[in-house]
Amino acid sequence: MQSQTSGLIGAIEAGGTKFICALAQIDGAIVARARIDTRTPAECFPEVAAFFRHAQASHGRIAAFGVASFGPIDIDPTSPAYGTFTTTPKPGWQGARFHDVLGSFGAPIVVDTDVNGAALGEWLAGAGRGTRTLAYTTIGTGVGTGVLRDGRSLMGFSHYEMGHVHPTHDRVADPFPGWCPYHGDCLEGLVAGPAIIKRWGTSLDKLTDDPAKIDLIGGYIADLAADLVLMHMPDRLIFGGGVVKAPGLIEAVRRRTKARLNGYVRNARLEPGLESYIVTPGLGDDAGITGAIELGRQALARHQMQD
Amino acid sequence: MQSQTSGLIGAIEAGGTKFICALAQIDGAIVARARIDTRTPAECFPEVAAFFRHAQASHGRIAAFGVASFGPIDIDPTSPAYGTFTTTPKPGWQGARFHDVLGSFGAPIVVDTDVNGAALGEWLAGAGRGTRTLAYTTIGTGVGTGVLRDGRSLMGFSHYEMGHVHPTHDRVADPFPGWCPYHGDCLEGLVAGPAIIKRWGTSLDKLTDDPAKIDLIGGYIADLAADLVLMHMPDRLIFGGGVVKAPGLIEAVRRRTKARLNGYVRNARLEPGLESYIVTPGLGDDAGITGAIELGRQALARHQMQD
Repeated sequence: MQSQTSGLIGAIEAGGTKFICALAQIDGAIVARARIDTRTPAECFPEVAAFFRHAQASHGRIAAFGVASFGPIDIDPTSPAYGTFTTTPKPGWQGARFHDVLGSFGAPIVVDTDVNGAALGEWLAGAGRGTRTLAYTTIGTGVGTGVLRDGRSLMGFSHYEMGHVHPTHDRVADPFPGWCPYHGDCLEGLVAGPAIIKRWGTSLDKLTDDPAKIDLIGGYIADLAADLVLMHMPDRLIFGGGVVKAPGLIEAVRRRTKARLNGYVRNARLEPGLESYIVTPGLGDDAGITGAIELGRQALARHQMQD
Repeated sequence: MQSQTSGLIGAIEAGGTKFICALAQIDGAIVARARIDTRTPAECFPEVAAFFRHAQASHGRIAAFGVASFGPIDIDPTSPAYGTFTTTPKPGWQGARFHDVLGSFGAPIVVDTDVNGAALGEWLAGAGRGTRTLAYTTIGTGVGTGVLRDGRSLMGFSHYEMGHVHPTHDRVADPFPGWCPYHGDCLEGLVAGPAIIKRWGTSLDKLTDDPAKIDLIGGYIADLAADLVLMHMPDRLIFGGGVVKAPGLIEAVRRRTKARLNGYVRNARLEPGLESYIVTPGLGDDAGITGAIELGRQALARHQMQD
């Protein structure tokens, strides 16, 4: 159910270090693009507005905006604070709102998380094509998972926070206490990039001569994969982010997920080796902006339905 | 968004030991009701059909059916096998389909799981009123959780199977290996009624003079509660079923969930003691049939939208 309509789309992939801003045609073709360093909203929002004003002057009126952003951020369209950063420790960002910078364009705005945006990009044009329920997990500085159903991100009273689930951690076999300031050995505290550097002094892709380390990290990630199966029953699980680039890791995640589920979930999708069930991203760095453009299409479609 | 329309609703709460069949008015008032023992479909389906034929003759045409059933069962309305029991070990039930017994009435049928049905009942008229995202967990012979969003049950390629997630199990402090034939010490293997009897020789409500046992079981259930928060962000969590009736257990679940999350999720719903966030059911034994009637309303509403 890709949204079908016409008009130009303004898209933002808002990350902790940079914003990617793009103006795209309805078919997704990008006609203008800029990278803006993330500083405080007071510093970078005016540059974002200037980019879209300029792009609009050159290419035509922007019909809708899609934003895939770091968080935590309010992504509930029915909330008065929709599009507002909530409890982020990032200086200046708590209370900042994308509508403050984009509202003057008079176009509808859809805001979602960065991980939901990347999930949407992969669903539309990457490794998630053809799925109805898709779980996309990124494992880098932190750990986050977005779940889509029919191309719409799922949420409850907030977006999900799956990086903080607890894998099975045998402290005798692995005495590392974890690194999460809240939970110690939650998943993020065990497998995020900083946790791996903290315990081994280097990133996982430098440790591939030590299969036990790859298997250990893969096992923790597999516990989330198994939880995702039992608690969301996705058609496919995508794992991306810097940590997952370590050679052998995705194979370890498949092997350990299979062991964890132990044949309980019987479905043709979970074929013997899970090779097409647990996969890496198809789009690489373009997933986020591809998803943000699709969020803009969804904004336009919703707006046109209301007219 | 309670479905609003008119007509009589046929409802079935199909459990492993009994079927509750009811004919209800659109407002939920039950005008006829029967209990039919669960045997093979060949034995009990004809009695189910006879009940509804008789009820229809007495009260008027049945406009739609709602079924909340034990499983595993196909609950995807777009599936050719919708309403069919899948891999159940229950003799005679694999491949049986509710449409076989109800199809001759020529009315639309919605089939969902028993736990989703109970969740729906609680959402409509019990402890889940006023929520948008509701998680209902039953802990009895087995463990199952249904999650609703705006009064519709969520699913992926199948209904969820949350009873088989793994809580944190310290085998030094608690050497019980668990009882699940697939996973040993998954949640069902640690806290379902048979697991408790297996380890302590009696049910949990007979052990309330031993607070450590209540706290141990409460802690395992709390690990699911915390996972539900992080992976579904529900507005409320309901825990029902025989095990949860043990005095002190729900308090232990609240206390241990709070400890597990450790302040990470900041939201007014998660007030200091979680007293209105983690709750017991409001409807008792009527949740299932109340939910089945609402499923019938949904069947009717969908049918009328298609006309």
